[in-house]
Amino acid sequence: MSFAVPERLLLGPGPSPVSDRVRAAMARPVLGHLDPQFLAIVDAVQEGLREVFGTTNSLTFPVSGTGSAGMEMSLVNFVEPGDSVIVVEQGVFGQRMADAAKRLGARVHAIQVPFGEICTRAQLEDALDRNPDVRLVAVVKAETSTGVLQPLDDWAPLVHGRGALLLVDTVTALGGLPVEVDRMGFDIAFAGTQKCLGAPPGLSPMTVGNTAWRRLEERRDPVPSWYLDLKAISQYLGGSRAYHHTAPISMIYALHAALDAIREEGLEQVWARHRRVAESLWVGLEAMDLQLLVPRPYRLPTVATVAIPEGVDDRRVRRRLLEEHQIEIAGGLGAWAGKAWRIGVMGEGARIEHMMRLLVALRSTLAAEGVTRPSGLAALEDTYQKGGQS
Amino acid sequence: MSFAVPERLLLGPGPSPVSDRVRAAMARPVLGHLDPQFLAIVDAVQEGLREVFGTTNSLTFPVSGTGSAGMEMSLVNFVEPGDSVIVVEQGVFGQRMADAAKRLGARVHAIQVPFGEICTRAQLEDALDRNPDVRLVAVVKAETSTGVLQPLDDWAPLVHGRGALLLVDTVTALGGLPVEVDRMGFDIAFAGTQKCLGAPPGLSPMTVGNTAWRRLEERRDPVPSWYLDLKAISQYLGGSRAYHHTAPISMIYALHAALDAIREEGLEQVWARHRRVAESLWVGLEAMDLQLLVPRPYRLPTVATVAIPEGVDDRRVRRRLLEEHQIEIAGGLGAWAGKAWRIGVMGEGARIEHMMRLLVALRSTLAAEGVTRPSGLAALEDTYQKGGQS
Repeated sequence: MSFAVPERLLLGPGPSPVSDRVRAAMARPVLGHLDPQFLAIVDAVQEGLREVFGTTNSLTFPVSGTGSAGMEMSLVNFVEPGDSVIVVEQGVFGQRMADAAKRLGARVHAIQVPFGEICTRAQLEDALDRNPDVRLVAVVKAETSTGVLQPLDDWAPLVHGRGALLLVDTVTALGGLPVEVDRMGFDIAFAGTQKCLGAPPGLSPMTVGNTAWRRLEERRDPVPSWYLDLKAISQYLGGSRAYHHTAPISMIYALHAALDAIREEGLEQVWARHRRVAESLWVGLEAMDLQLLVPRPYRLPTVATVAIPEGVDDRRVRRRLLEEHQIEIAGGLGAWAGKAWRIGVMGEGARIEHMMRLLVALRSTLAAEGVTRPSGLAALEDTYQKGGQS
Repeated sequence: MSFAVPERLLLGPGPSPVSDRVRAAMARPVLGHLDPQFLAIVDAVQEGLREVFGTTNSLTFPVSGTGSAGMEMSLVNFVEPGDSVIVVEQGVFGQRMADAAKRLGARVHAIQVPFGEICTRAQLEDALDRNPDVRLVAVVKAETSTGVLQPLDDWAPLVHGRGALLLVDTVTALGGLPVEVDRMGFDIAFAGTQKCLGAPPGLSPMTVGNTAWRRLEERRDPVPSWYLDLKAISQYLGGSRAYHHTAPISMIYALHAALDAIREEGLEQVWARHRRVAESLWVGLEAMDLQLLVPRPYRLPTVATVAIPEGVDDRRVRRRLLEEHQIEIAGGLGAWAGKAWRIGVMGEGARIEHMMRLLVALRSTLAAEGVTRPSGLAALEDTYQKGGQS
């Protein structure tokens, strides 16, 4: 049963590469979940998450599950049966929130946005006008399935003006670009550890503001999920340290180490690195005549979506990249299955040298598949040969 | 923000000590959740879990959350609003299942059993007679809050005879004593990794039989939880490998290594070691005139519950054990808060030398607190000095 793990270069949309330092943190001795030493680590993780979320919310913590558990927690606590909920469906993860909200008995009004496009302010206003009793608006800031960065700068006043909460999926944003929960007026936000934060999958960072908390206090019925009951969990995080469930100790060590590394590099420097490396990737892809599916003004730096060229076998190319070059990229999801590749520029993956390695491997794989690409990549390759580092 | 982690001897009711080998597994390079190499590891983990559960159920896998997530998954998939559910409340974890089932809209009939006692066959029969429309019976095999081992040998025929499913919490049993899902006729069972399996907290092993699966197929409404939707998850585990949520890769490495270690030692040998070490602990505690709260015939080997002697300050003794001796034990929960200590004999903690270290530390701590104990411990201490190993 024993196993060897190859060293893959993870350039899909998550998990992203995990540094030695973060992996080593998981190998530390396990502490009890009520040990004062462990509680100090939880406190530090909460503080580190406040920094990346850009918030002073005291209720900022890692949910004991992967990113989708954070989504579920955000909905199950704040949506009651019969509630009117607006969900922006601009990709698979927006659709997922709509699905999850419906399962909880919400009346879901979906704003349909084609893959690769953003939701406009006019669309939001229209949906708000049609749903005067709206209680919550849910939107994905960084759509992992499309590579779209949704502008949300002026959403909170509109949403709050109707008495609704603004819930934002920041899974593929947190740590890789500004999230600014407080400045943007997000009431609830959740993320994942395996994207731009550079930790393995297994936790979902989450933050909840005061307005959302008051909503929780006014609930008519108990939260239907015992495991994800936010009030109960807040008692473990807060002063009383009441046992709820056993925290995933080693994963929290990993997140601690990952946040530590971000703080050392500097959060703004980390964002700038993601941006810079993403732009290099775009240049390289365009130099190979590969088409990016999202227009530049709202192109997400952390996940690039690339049109699969005519006549190219999607799965075979990805398998060759994995087996011959030890590089993982992903195929498309939903409406873009078979039509797009998704390349992650996240966390430790957001390094120039990794992008160059991918571009070179992709070009040679496409050539082996009989698709020749322009030699425009040479200039970049040259940079790489000279040891260009991010 | 960086932190040092002390080496505690974890002898509470979980997390139990995690071996170097299992911790090292978490430090391995992270793979993608759809990488064929990772899927092979998932397959091996599923097979290892079938062995410890004693089942051939194909749907045997680790839920992406801690033990309570497994509980939630067991209920949210198999209980629909209005369903009649019988829950045995013989401790905090039985009460928790009743709470979780009520949140899902079930009509819960609780069989009340005082702390430290078992539920009798007559009590079960009575509850079944009173609830002819019962759809599910939920019971804890090994109650972590009381240290009671619930006999369940003849339950399945009774429960199945009424057309109900038998759901068993095996959190503090799996890997430490026979669970025998197939032989006992359990329809659904869940556990935790941080108890007798010797991995860190963060996953909940679960197994689901065919009868339970058919119930799922007959559901009137979608499962209210997106994250814990068993049918959707089964597609990732099964042939199609459809993406549901990103698996917690590093935790699954840890579980793989822990199951590997159990297989090497031999499952029956591991059970025998838990039993032998538990009995040594009992002898040692009795030699100190400390009273075990559960009568021997249904005393759980994996968690001993000890009456806190008159006049002893519970919290202060536990704090001294932790700070002066680096040993963690736990206080009581629920009705036994302040009345009991709970000592885990689980996984790598189930070693004679660890029990001796605890007994010696406990005696000296009690002495420092002004409580003298008989010297009957000397014989055992002698064994320990001679390097007695488990």
